[in-house]
Amino acid sequence: VTEDPTAAALAGVLGRPQVITDPSLCASYGTEPTGRWRGQPRCVALPRTTDEVAAVLRVCAARRAPVVAQGGRTGLVGGGVPGNGEIVLSTARLSRIEPVNLDTAQVTVGAGVTLAAVQSQAQREGLLFGVDFGARDACTVGGMVATNAGGTRVLRWGTMRDQVAGIEAVLSTGETISHLTGHIKDNTGYHLAGLLAGSEGTLGVITRVRLKLRPGNPHHYSAALALGSIGGAVDTLTRLRTSLPTLDAAEIMWSDGIRLVTDVLGVSGPFRDPPPVVLLVDSAGPAEHLDGFAAAVAACPSVRDSVVATTAQGRAYLWEVRDRHGEAVHRLGTPHKFDVTLPPGAIEDFERAVRLLVDRLAPGATTVIFGHLGDGNLHLNVVGPPPDDPTLADAVLRLVAGRGGSISAEHGIGRAKLPWLELNRSVAELAAMRRVRRAWDPAGILNPAVL
Amino acid sequence: VTEDPTAAALAGVLGRPQVITDPSLCASYGTEPTGRWRGQPRCVALPRTTDEVAAVLRVCAARRAPVVAQGGRTGLVGGGVPGNGEIVLSTARLSRIEPVNLDTAQVTVGAGVTLAAVQSQAQREGLLFGVDFGARDACTVGGMVATNAGGTRVLRWGTMRDQVAGIEAVLSTGETISHLTGHIKDNTGYHLAGLLAGSEGTLGVITRVRLKLRPGNPHHYSAALALGSIGGAVDTLTRLRTSLPTLDAAEIMWSDGIRLVTDVLGVSGPFRDPPPVVLLVDSAGPAEHLDGFAAAVAACPSVRDSVVATTAQGRAYLWEVRDRHGEAVHRLGTPHKFDVTLPPGAIEDFERAVRLLVDRLAPGATTVIFGHLGDGNLHLNVVGPPPDDPTLADAVLRLVAGRGGSISAEHGIGRAKLPWLELNRSVAELAAMRRVRRAWDPAGILNPAVL
Repeated sequence: VTEDPTAAALAGVLGRPQVITDPSLCASYGTEPTGRWRGQPRCVALPRTTDEVAAVLRVCAARRAPVVAQGGRTGLVGGGVPGNGEIVLSTARLSRIEPVNLDTAQVTVGAGVTLAAVQSQAQREGLLFGVDFGARDACTVGGMVATNAGGTRVLRWGTMRDQVAGIEAVLSTGETISHLTGHIKDNTGYHLAGLLAGSEGTLGVITRVRLKLRPGNPHHYSAALALGSIGGAVDTLTRLRTSLPTLDAAEIMWSDGIRLVTDVLGVSGPFRDPPPVVLLVDSAGPAEHLDGFAAAVAACPSVRDSVVATTAQGRAYLWEVRDRHGEAVHRLGTPHKFDVTLPPGAIEDFERAVRLLVDRLAPGATTVIFGHLGDGNLHLNVVGPPPDDPTLADAVLRLVAGRGGSISAEHGIGRAKLPWLELNRSVAELAAMRRVRRAWDPAGILNPAVL
Repeated sequence: VTEDPTAAALAGVLGRPQVITDPSLCASYGTEPTGRWRGQPRCVALPRTTDEVAAVLRVCAARRAPVVAQGGRTGLVGGGVPGNGEIVLSTARLSRIEPVNLDTAQVTVGAGVTLAAVQSQAQREGLLFGVDFGARDACTVGGMVATNAGGTRVLRWGTMRDQVAGIEAVLSTGETISHLTGHIKDNTGYHLAGLLAGSEGTLGVITRVRLKLRPGNPHHYSAALALGSIGGAVDTLTRLRTSLPTLDAAEIMWSDGIRLVTDVLGVSGPFRDPPPVVLLVDSAGPAEHLDGFAAAVAACPSVRDSVVATTAQGRAYLWEVRDRHGEAVHRLGTPHKFDVTLPPGAIEDFERAVRLLVDRLAPGATTVIFGHLGDGNLHLNVVGPPPDDPTLADAVLRLVAGRGGSISAEHGIGRAKLPWLELNRSVAELAAMRRVRRAWDPAGILNPAVL
């Protein structure tokens, strides 16, 4: 067997146990959970330190060998798996968690540390981490920063970019840029951390991140609010944003999605007869800050009915219907998944228009919409049309852009949405991005199929 | 009189009334309030629209004529005035304020709009803007974003970069990049707004900004806390951060600074006998969220004494001593001003070391320190040594960097701190920044003397 000379060179700098070349072992590093994006890695490098990452990139740059940096492989848009026989640089072994710095409420972690591990580390000190979503046990900090991950708490704490107090990354040239002091006021040149956040592995490989932590919340309230329309939900949220500084999450569901979850999974929802729209809100903070919760909800004129929960069990009950929307959809078949943002004022019209559009393009298909109203972020699922047909995607994303929306809210562009990027970004913006990319990765080896 | 051909070309695209060429009129666009940085502009262009900004930059690029974008001229580090006969591009006439979008709590404004105007516009809708500082009536949004301005509310709402929901800017090529949809979740490529924020006019001229607004606060509490040491103040702040999610500001003063203000300006402070350190904290939110304020303060073991104010008059009284530190210092003479960030745990040691350093280098000089403890941001003022002697600056900034601090917290690098930038940024980081700059401004015409 003749060994791939690039794999051999990587084994030379890392040691053989840190380079996987066996095709069947490599294969598992080539798939995402949706199964839609897959590709065979040329080989898999598993560096344990920043210096080893730099060594890997130097080898790849010298040989012009394309590299895909890979975290927990929980992406949904083909951004972290090879498309064309790239080398996979797995950050799995960059897994060191430092002690929490209590003065600044910050923690420095390796790129391969999972979200769940960050959350545990914060909890041990009575703090919390501001980002949370379902893939918490597998997704890793490097990938979360590279894709600027979102989730359910963005309303209060911002996206992953907003959690970054410092970053260390290796550029395609093998140079390491490291700025981990964590100062919030630190005007000493360009904000390289913000540029790397959301760059989807195209500008450098993130190796360590200094993360902001937030005050731990001793008390939590949740409420399911019954509303007659999405317009009423938007109005209610506008009021609660002002009256409840401790508002943490605002999730939106429609009656047809709720009925699907209750029918298919045998879950009982908070309302016997689902109203047209349910807004699920969370608030978290010290006890005395939550006293106004019920009063704030009661002061919203659009709310027809409400169920408030203050115990962990009660809150889990309210959240179950929301959390299991994805699962219920998958019981019907493989969905076309869209992750989009709409201006709050455009959601009502968009919802009507997109249902008509699906009925026209794919008669008989099932459309289920849910999402994070606090950010205007809707997850649109359509079950029925063949998975590989781009007609529906094209029509839906054009509708989104036409209504002033974003074609990628929190999942990123990856390979999946590349054909539609120009719907949201002008020729001048794309040219400006390309210039940065070329300046930092002149050989074009970093995630070349992405963005 | 032969007219400068570049000025003539600018008059050709803008119309003559929008180009100032008279040297005595130009001169006022060449100074900053400190008087330390001044330079004669070659001419001053006053575009009224983004397209006119693009036209100005196209003329300058074609003639390789350097340009300094200028806002309210309230900078302190020579970043907004010409150093070498550059053309001044004033954003003063980009002064349109759009109505507040209530669904998203955002407002889009021209670069030339003052901070005070943004604050008023927010207040009219029961909202507030998250950044505030003394120069509010003159400083403008474009300059605030370009320098990533800070101030007293960063603890709660972040720096200027964190207020930006969308940006429009013209690059040196004359291309306009515009992304003003304001979506919080919007992962469609590189975060160009974050890169422009803090770039000090070197990457593009910001023309419009979509700003996040925050819930208006019906109730405000302030407290002056007497402490025995800076260590006690850091500990107190760590506790309050957790127990008071509505904590807005945390300012630090030392007894010698307080005595200077009370003696020189005849102001009376909150404590008859100033304690070694005073921590001034603000909290703002709905009434029921403030009930815990006094209890949270009482639970801090390091607090020896406290004065709480809940009325506007009482709060103004507590803040006056803090606000007038700068004025009192200037009564003694022209100070050497340093704007630095230290890790909270290093402040106590730094304060001792810097006082010894000043005593050694400038015997008899007066040192006054105050600042924003919430961000570790200290304003260090030294009155005594001759203004143009760089010895003191060199020694102080090296001390800061040696203690893990940032040599520029909120004022920026400008021309003032350029010689010391490498104390905070590695060769690799500086090279990475230079590559971005060259990619976006190949002719090197944007604020060439800065950063």
